[in-house]
Amino acid sequence: MTEQSRRIVLARRPSGMVDAETTRLETVPVPEPGPGEAVARVRYLSIDPTIRTWMDDAPGYLPPIEIDAVVRSGGIGEVVASNSERYAVGDTVFGMLGWQDHAVIDEGENTAQVIPPGVEATAALSVFGVTGMTAYFGLLDVGKPQPGDTVVVSGAAGATGSVVGQIAKIKEAGKVVGIAGGPEKCKWIVDELGFDAAIDYKSDDVGARLSELCPDGIDVYFDNVGGAILDTCLSHLALRARIACCGAISAYNDRGDAPGLKNYFSLITRRARMEGFLILDYLDRFPEAQIDMFGWVAEGRITHAEHVVEGLESAPDALNLLFTGGNTGKVVVAVDGA
Amino acid sequence: MTEQSRRIVLARRPSGMVDAETTRLETVPVPEPGPGEAVARVRYLSIDPTIRTWMDDAPGYLPPIEIDAVVRSGGIGEVVASNSERYAVGDTVFGMLGWQDHAVIDEGENTAQVIPPGVEATAALSVFGVTGMTAYFGLLDVGKPQPGDTVVVSGAAGATGSVVGQIAKIKEAGKVVGIAGGPEKCKWIVDELGFDAAIDYKSDDVGARLSELCPDGIDVYFDNVGGAILDTCLSHLALRARIACCGAISAYNDRGDAPGLKNYFSLITRRARMEGFLILDYLDRFPEAQIDMFGWVAEGRITHAEHVVEGLESAPDALNLLFTGGNTGKVVVAVDGA
Repeated sequence: MTEQSRRIVLARRPSGMVDAETTRLETVPVPEPGPGEAVARVRYLSIDPTIRTWMDDAPGYLPPIEIDAVVRSGGIGEVVASNSERYAVGDTVFGMLGWQDHAVIDEGENTAQVIPPGVEATAALSVFGVTGMTAYFGLLDVGKPQPGDTVVVSGAAGATGSVVGQIAKIKEAGKVVGIAGGPEKCKWIVDELGFDAAIDYKSDDVGARLSELCPDGIDVYFDNVGGAILDTCLSHLALRARIACCGAISAYNDRGDAPGLKNYFSLITRRARMEGFLILDYLDRFPEAQIDMFGWVAEGRITHAEHVVEGLESAPDALNLLFTGGNTGKVVVAVDGA
Repeated sequence: MTEQSRRIVLARRPSGMVDAETTRLETVPVPEPGPGEAVARVRYLSIDPTIRTWMDDAPGYLPPIEIDAVVRSGGIGEVVASNSERYAVGDTVFGMLGWQDHAVIDEGENTAQVIPPGVEATAALSVFGVTGMTAYFGLLDVGKPQPGDTVVVSGAAGATGSVVGQIAKIKEAGKVVGIAGGPEKCKWIVDELGFDAAIDYKSDDVGARLSELCPDGIDVYFDNVGGAILDTCLSHLALRARIACCGAISAYNDRGDAPGLKNYFSLITRRARMEGFLILDYLDRFPEAQIDMFGWVAEGRITHAEHVVEGLESAPDALNLLFTGGNTGKVVVAVDGA
């Protein structure tokens, strides 16, 4: 009997959160590698907000996931069969492996990167992976904090935001304020990660707290959420402020009805800049950032957290966690389950 | 009998357009210059959208105009009395002279700049003045057009927009598209100013026309209007596009109810930038720009137009013209009237 492999495909485009009808779990034979290909057993999936945007039939930086196609997702796997000179059986690889047990990788479009031995798989997906790189380049290359600056980050207990605040402190920001949901997350970012202050958007008046905590305005705002919080931050900018637009979690599930930005006029009065970026553009600069990041983690200057969800079948629920704020740190699915 | 001087003061903060109750015409004695001061007879007023923003009791880059104070406004005048070594009787000066017949200027806060003989007063207020400088630095310093770029400008038949498009052509933009209101303005910017194409926002579907005219997206958008047109342009950006935020005419009279921007997410997918600027920050760089501008006008490469409204008492109506789109080119009030 042929060995079977599970996979989750997009059954229907969601309107709002992913639900039971959005995806379908299928079983197919384990693929065989063709010439120049390898097959990886997927171990961990990187659950990122951007996956939700790929489920919409809307133009983006990557094409939408097609109906009946496996849900696109970063992941870590172990090479179990190979006809490729690049991949040896036993290698740990990172790539767009998708929500499935087995992924075919090659040296072309479906390439994957071999991870050096000794790097914990979940850390490779979070702080040393795309998430950490997003924090690093978004903050340093787009936000450009100067020593003494007031830096504000939203989604501050999330995978990216939690690292942004810590890098800002390493780079001598004068004050780092995180915006997060709920007292536990707020306590975590201040007590464990060293943020100077936290704003609980679920219970605080964000504008009033920003006035109090950032009396001279925000120099750098790293935005993970878009929507109302971005609009409030726009009205608290310091002169020549930089907004690094990383994501808009608040709008991913309901783009049409999300309220628009009203305070964009302050970009003029504050001579400020709002700039979007995608980590895809920085792939060739990952090594320099990874060297910094390895050092900071080894020195205990950056704490990272992963929120591990067990089982491939839980991937859709894991994705929803990002939008309900049910996670602290990076959401990862352990494909094999408990 | 003392000679009398007219002035227009802010009587009440407007909600929406300026109306009969917003301002009050007063008559006061002609001021005498104190030590170090001079008195200028105001000849022409520069009517700019920003004056409307100063009438609101809202934080801005300059303090609001106080109730019962003369309406703040740039202007050109002739020195008629002087106790200052800087100003001689007969000098033509530019400064914040205000909506009045006579202005007191000094060498400190209420300074004014002496205009060289031979420069036409209305041109000094438009193409060689703040308006032209705004077009120059906003386009070149913030928008940074590269040869071959697609440049779009809104308010394209206005004082600033009309110059922006012409400078873009001089700098070898591949295509310059102006957005203006009505067939006459659209015809003027194409036939007289050399824009490649015009979109009439009053009768065209702006989004559909942008798709048609800018199939590869907008590289530089110079925004004078904000609101719905800015939002539409956001969804037509090329990769690494730059939006130079100069003004938001659509919102000045009704900031609270203006619809917000919904398409800001495309700043991320297009890795684009939206940046505000104020011409006040470029005062020390005016000479370099004025040299370019004098040359271009002399060579016939830049055409400028002034829309002259007669009589100080018409200043409030002249301001409203900017928001109803009743002008083509720079709006100037000839204080003496016809």
